[in-house]
Amino acid sequence: MDDLSIERDVVFRMKTTKVPGTLARALAVAGEYGAHIGEIETVFVGADYNVRDVSIIAPSQEVVEQIAAAFEKMEGVELLPGRVDRVFQQHEGGKIKVSSNATVRTLQDMRDVYTPGVARVVQAIVEDDAVANRLTWRGNTVAIVTNGTRVLGLGDVGPAAALPVMEGKALFYAEMVGVNAVPIVLDTKDPDEVIETVLRIAPGFGAIHLEDIATPGVYRIERELEQRLDIPVFHDDQHGTAVVVAAAVVSAAKKIDRDISDLRFGQVGLGAAGSAIAGLASGLGFEEIWAYDPSESGIERFREVVEPSVDVKTGTDQEHFDALVAQCDVVVLATGQPGLLSPDRVRSGQIIFALTNPVPEIEYADALSAGAAVAADGSIVNNVLAYPGLIKGALDARASSVTSKMKQAAVFAIADRASEGFLLPEPLSKKLHDSVSEAVALAAR
Amino acid sequence: MDDLSIERDVVFRMKTTKVPGTLARALAVAGEYGAHIGEIETVFVGADYNVRDVSIIAPSQEVVEQIAAAFEKMEGVELLPGRVDRVFQQHEGGKIKVSSNATVRTLQDMRDVYTPGVARVVQAIVEDDAVANRLTWRGNTVAIVTNGTRVLGLGDVGPAAALPVMEGKALFYAEMVGVNAVPIVLDTKDPDEVIETVLRIAPGFGAIHLEDIATPGVYRIERELEQRLDIPVFHDDQHGTAVVVAAAVVSAAKKIDRDISDLRFGQVGLGAAGSAIAGLASGLGFEEIWAYDPSESGIERFREVVEPSVDVKTGTDQEHFDALVAQCDVVVLATGQPGLLSPDRVRSGQIIFALTNPVPEIEYADALSAGAAVAADGSIVNNVLAYPGLIKGALDARASSVTSKMKQAAVFAIADRASEGFLLPEPLSKKLHDSVSEAVALAAR
Repeated sequence: MDDLSIERDVVFRMKTTKVPGTLARALAVAGEYGAHIGEIETVFVGADYNVRDVSIIAPSQEVVEQIAAAFEKMEGVELLPGRVDRVFQQHEGGKIKVSSNATVRTLQDMRDVYTPGVARVVQAIVEDDAVANRLTWRGNTVAIVTNGTRVLGLGDVGPAAALPVMEGKALFYAEMVGVNAVPIVLDTKDPDEVIETVLRIAPGFGAIHLEDIATPGVYRIERELEQRLDIPVFHDDQHGTAVVVAAAVVSAAKKIDRDISDLRFGQVGLGAAGSAIAGLASGLGFEEIWAYDPSESGIERFREVVEPSVDVKTGTDQEHFDALVAQCDVVVLATGQPGLLSPDRVRSGQIIFALTNPVPEIEYADALSAGAAVAADGSIVNNVLAYPGLIKGALDARASSVTSKMKQAAVFAIADRASEGFLLPEPLSKKLHDSVSEAVALAAR
Repeated sequence: MDDLSIERDVVFRMKTTKVPGTLARALAVAGEYGAHIGEIETVFVGADYNVRDVSIIAPSQEVVEQIAAAFEKMEGVELLPGRVDRVFQQHEGGKIKVSSNATVRTLQDMRDVYTPGVARVVQAIVEDDAVANRLTWRGNTVAIVTNGTRVLGLGDVGPAAALPVMEGKALFYAEMVGVNAVPIVLDTKDPDEVIETVLRIAPGFGAIHLEDIATPGVYRIERELEQRLDIPVFHDDQHGTAVVVAAAVVSAAKKIDRDISDLRFGQVGLGAAGSAIAGLASGLGFEEIWAYDPSESGIERFREVVEPSVDVKTGTDQEHFDALVAQCDVVVLATGQPGLLSPDRVRSGQIIFALTNPVPEIEYADALSAGAAVAADGSIVNNVLAYPGLIKGALDARASSVTSKMKQAAVFAIADRASEGFLLPEPLSKKLHDSVSEAVALAAR
């Protein structure tokens, strides 16, 4: 569900004469070219001019050049050398590193961290494998595994090109919850070989995070690894997305002062994310769960993950789809079909999430105009809200899998942290991630 | 060639009355039990007593307890609570961690390190794989691969128990040269599966460091990976050891003021380390290289790695061994046979390295008494002297393999850094590692 546009964020170093309105004129020019403005940082304040670093978010490199040319022609505006590509700058040398967690100052230290001292740690692990969770990094380390077959909206880019995306995920693990995440990018498209390889490298990791692997292979990869490994296996594209969407749903219900137990939940589209969302929703306390997908395989996928105690209505035909939209209080659409839901179908007071990128099943503004109480599109889905705390909680609890209960705990922890007026919390809040990991660890124990 | 004893380093917190000679008496007691003294740190100086943390290196846990009991009985000596197991303390939570190498303070930062920014980096790598060496951590990252089948002197301990050893190696990479090293511990003993797995994970790494994998499988693993990967593959047990021993040989020749080109080099024992030492020595400028092993397979192993331009004399029988010891100016023994070389065979002025642990082919003191100019045992072999700089140099030069020239460059760089009166430099010297990596990178280019 990640954003698939390739916008271009560029920083212009801009010298403007100190005449009120000059910066605004420049920004207006950028706006005329369809660019958004990012951060503006003042670098120098002179007697008669200022220098600022202005971030421009342009739809393409071509537009960047057009804006630059327009700036050059403006009165009172000058571009200084050193236009910065923030993205490439941040990636230079990689976004993560391995560093020391021990002291190596003296020869005695070497004797402790390596031979002869380390031999006693080896023997302690030979006697009890669980010791490795405490005396090696394993207990706090996750492998982020991909073969690069379904990266962002870019598709099958292969293992090496997937690396910066996995590093991004790893960076958030490090920053948000202090978990060691290691990108493992695999040179194979065969799901069986992915399974085999992960099983072989698993003794060095405390959890497996699957990312950006093509469907349907990834379903089998996840299922087999879950069965054969005694550590958590987490497919972020499905379950990370599901947790974030479910948290937004819980948050939306709260916003309109409705109890979940009074609401009917409807899921339209039962692909990777859709089936996971509906499955997770079925454990949150909804009165009924409706699910629609044109294919039987989608319905089967949903049947596998839905909580057995819940009233469920499924179907593959148009009538079922129509009934779902008419009956459900919450409608989540993840179909890949832009404009699927026409505004005249929206019922007053509904919660409508249309997740297809970049053009949703219904624009949220149209849904709101048509009477929806809450509406949102795919831009709400930021998996960074969920996976760091989820895996940290699972590792801390030494959980052998990520259970529904743990994901539900994450859902409510995230929803609880949303600020007034927002469906979801700030992803950069460390408090958020702490509270997710604590809730998940508690649910695991 | 790593140390295989399981000595026990323990720190006693010791309160001694301020009477001159008290500490010395206590240390003498430890000595009576066969223990060595490590670091002594003063924690508190009082009017009539001192408190110190005294590191004791005892041959076993049993002896630790005996020494503690003896201390308790001593006049003026008291053991305070909190005896520290330095080794376990240093290992707590693991010895390495993954940390951030980018800035993630604002939402703009998130846009740069993850979507949408990262998509441009992905596309740049799709267009040119080499970009991944610059814009991901790959160009500075090595996988330390083992299956735990031959760990230190402990043998086949399995993958999980090998982890602390690999973390120790990784820690030195981080501390000495700032290379990211990731322990990959494999749950398979089959060399073909090791090869297959490394090939699959290779797109995420800039180099492969093989460690503690049982012979003979590891020879094939190394050879196949070298052929099939275009990144450096380095088997540390062989080549790291060879570089360090060769550096000590070069250093010894310098010490006795002899030119390498005037010396005959003899290698006794052509196992993993022995064949690598002889092969490497053949490129250093010796007049002749003699090699002995009782098995034809050892001779073959040597033939594969010896420089073709050099005069070589090989043999598997006793006469050849006798001739080698009589004729060679440098004799390196790596046979696994304690006491193989009787002192009466030593020729005056010879350089003799007897590397078998824990009891060498000849004690160095006996060799010196018998007339050797320089003698040493396996305790000189500390691979930390070589591998960090070697791999750093290879990565910096974007080398596609570790060539003989690069290893030779490391040999001379290490030998050059030995302090007056020592065969080898301090392993903790960052200058050493810098000069090794620079020399290796230069040789690679």
